[in-house]
Amino acid sequence: DPKIKLFSLNSNIPLAQEIAKEVGVELGRCAVHRFSDGEIQINIEESVRGCNVYVIQSTSQPVNENLMELLIMIDALKRASAKTINIVMPYYGYARQDRKARSREPITAKLVANLLETAGATRVLTLDLHAPQIQGFFDIPIDHLMGVPILSDYFKQRELTGDIVVVSPDHGGVTRARKMAERLKTPIAIIDKRRPRPNVAEVMNIVGNIEGKIAILIDDIIDTAGTITLAANALVENGAKEVYASCTHPVLSGPAIERIQNSKIKELIVTNSIALPEEKKIAKIKTLSVAPLIAEAIIRIHEEQSVSTLFD
Amino acid sequence: DPKIKLFSLNSNIPLAQEIAKEVGVELGRCAVHRFSDGEIQINIEESVRGCNVYVIQSTSQPVNENLMELLIMIDALKRASAKTINIVMPYYGYARQDRKARSREPITAKLVANLLETAGATRVLTLDLHAPQIQGFFDIPIDHLMGVPILSDYFKQRELTGDIVVVSPDHGGVTRARKMAERLKTPIAIIDKRRPRPNVAEVMNIVGNIEGKIAILIDDIIDTAGTITLAANALVENGAKEVYASCTHPVLSGPAIERIQNSKIKELIVTNSIALPEEKKIAKIKTLSVAPLIAEAIIRIHEEQSVSTLFD
Ligand SMILES: Nc1ncnc2c1ncn2[C@@H]1O[C@H](COP(=O)(O)O)[C@@H](O)[C@H]1O
Ligand SMILES: Nc1ncnc2c1ncn2[C@@H]1O[C@H](COP(=O)(O)O)[C@@H](O)[C@H]1O
Repeated sequence: DPKIKLFSLNSNIPLAQEIAKEVGVELGRCAVHRFSDGEIQINIEESVRGCNVYVIQSTSQPVNENLMELLIMIDALKRASAKTINIVMPYYGYARQDRKARSREPITAKLVANLLETAGATRVLTLDLHAPQIQGFFDIPIDHLMGVPILSDYFKQRELTGDIVVVSPDHGGVTRARKMAERLKTPIAIIDKRRPRPNVAEVMNIVGNIEGKIAILIDDIIDTAGTITLAANALVENGAKEVYASCTHPVLSGPAIERIQNSKIKELIVTNSIALPEEKKIAKIKTLSVAPLIAEAIIRIHEEQSVSTLFD
Repeated sequence: DPKIKLFSLNSNIPLAQEIAKEVGVELGRCAVHRFSDGEIQINIEESVRGCNVYVIQSTSQPVNENLMELLIMIDALKRASAKTINIVMPYYGYARQDRKARSREPITAKLVANLLETAGATRVLTLDLHAPQIQGFFDIPIDHLMGVPILSDYFKQRELTGDIVVVSPDHGGVTRARKMAERLKTPIAIIDKRRPRPNVAEVMNIVGNIEGKIAILIDDIIDTAGTITLAANALVENGAKEVYASCTHPVLSGPAIERIQNSKIKELIVTNSIALPEEKKIAKIKTLSVAPLIAEAIIRIHEEQSVSTLFD
C-alpha cells in the first residue's frame, strides 16, 4: 500500500502539527527558506516516491507568498515522483474574486485553481469556500468541508440561557445561518442593508424577531469586520439581549481587531483555518480547531486512494 | 489592423514609461491595488478587445508579489478578449532555479513558464536569461534580448586609456565575456575559483593576463555581490590597474550595496531591467537604459502580428 506523508508549509504550522497528531503520523521533513532576494527555496528532505502526499497550507496573509510556496512545493513533489499530491487548504485565498463584478476584471479564484492543477495538484481539500461554485473551477476532485457543525457544537455546549436567534449579517449568508439554526433548533433573522438613495447612508433593517434574544451572527469570512460589527451594534440597538459572532475564517485585516474590541460583540468564535498572530489573540476571540475534521477527511481519502490501488 | 496597447504593472514603472515613449504610445489605464488583506485587485480601465497587448513587468523583488500581479493581469486581459498577450519581463525571476541541483528540488523557472502559459500569455519577451535553456521551457514564442551590446557600447564610448581585458567572474560566464571582448576587441581572462580541500578557503586563481590592465568584469546578475567584489579585489591584488564591473540585472540584495561600496570596483554599470530603489542609487553605480532595445523589439513583434492577420 502507498504510504501517507503530511507536509506543512509556513502559513499555519500549529494546525498542521495538530492534524498530523490526529492522523497519527509525523510531519515530513522539508526545508522552506528564502534566498537573499526573497525567492523561495524548497528542498524536500525525505523520499516521497510512490506516496500519497498531503500538503497543508492556507493561502492567508501574505497570500501571494503562501500561494507561491504551495505551487513550488507541488512542483518539487511532482518531480520527486509522489503518487498523489493532495492540497489541504483550510483557507482558500482569492475566493472572493470568483466572478467578474465589472468588465475587464480577472476571476482570480479560477486562476488559482488553474495554477494549482498546472503545478501538479491531484486533489484539493478545503473548508467553507466563499462560494460553493468554486468547486466547479477544478477539474480534479475537491473535498469541501463545513465549519458550521463545529461552530454550532460550541454554542450547544455553552448552554446559553435564553431564547437564541441565529442572524445572517447579509443576504449572501442566509443558507449558512439556516444550517446553524437547524443544529441549534432556533429561528433565524437577517440584516437587510439598503441604501435608500445614492450617496445616502445605508439603513440597517432587521428582518425577523430579535427582541430580548441572544443573537448569534454567523459568516464565512470576517475580514475588516465592518459588516459584522455594524450588524452587532444594530442588533443591540434593536433590542437583542446580547450578541455573539462566529465565522470559519478569521482574516481580520486592517482595523478588524480594533472594531471588534470596540463593538457590542460579546464573544467572537472562529476556527484555526487561519493562524492568528499573537497581536490578534484578544480575549474576546475564541478559537476552535478544525484539525479533527480535516484529519478525518485525510484518513478517509487516504483509505480510498489505497483501496483504489487494488484495482489499478 | 489590431491596435497596440502597453500596460505597466508595479515593478518597474519608470522603464515602462520610457518604453511607451519610444514606441510612441501612451501607457494603458489600469488600476492595480491591494485589498486590506493583501490580495491583489486589478481592473483594466480601457477596452483591449482585439488588441495586441504588451504587459511590462520584471519579476524582481518582491518576486512573488510581482509574479502574481502579472498572472492576474494576464487572466483579466484574456477574459477581456485581448488578441495577443505579450509579456515583457526584462528580468525573469527564479531563473537561477533552472535545474534540480539536488534530489527533491523544484525547477521553479519551468514552473513560472507553465504558470504564465496557463494564465494565458501568448508570447514572452525577456532579457539575458540566467540560462538560455529557459527559452525551451516555453511552448509559446519567446524573444530573448541581450544586454552585452548596451554594456559594451558604454565602455567603447568611455574611451578608457590603457589596455583592456574583459573578465568573467566564474566559468559559467565565459561565453558572455567572450561576446563583450569581441565588441571591445580585447582579450579575456577568467577567475578560476577552486577549493583545494574541503573546509579550506577558496583560492582565486586568475587565468589570463591582467597585469597593468583595465579589467572589466561582466556577469548577468549581481545579487549579494559576493562573487563580483571578491573577483574585483583579486584582480587588483594581482596587478590590474583598475577594475570596472558590469551586469544586466542589478538584483543587489542583502549586503550588496555595502560590499560594492567597500570593494575595489571603480564603477558598476548596470541596466534598468530592475528598478533601483533610491537607497541603492549610489554614486559608483551607473544605469543604462534597455528601453530603446525593448521598444524596438515590441515594434517589430507588433508588425509581425499585424502582417500575420492578413493571412489569418
Ligand atoms: N480580498 C478582498 N477584500 C475585500 N473585498 C474583496 C476581496 N476580494 C474580492 N473582494 C470583493 O468582494 C466582493 C465579493 O464579495 P461577495 O459579494 O460577498 O461575494 C467583490 O465585489 C470583490 O470585488
Ligand atoms: N534567488 C537565488 N539566490 C541565490 N541563489 C540561488 C537563487 N536561486 C537559485 N539559486 C542557486 O543558484 C545556483 C544556480 O546558479 P548557477 O550555478 O550560477 O546557475 C543553484 O545552486 C541554485 O540553488
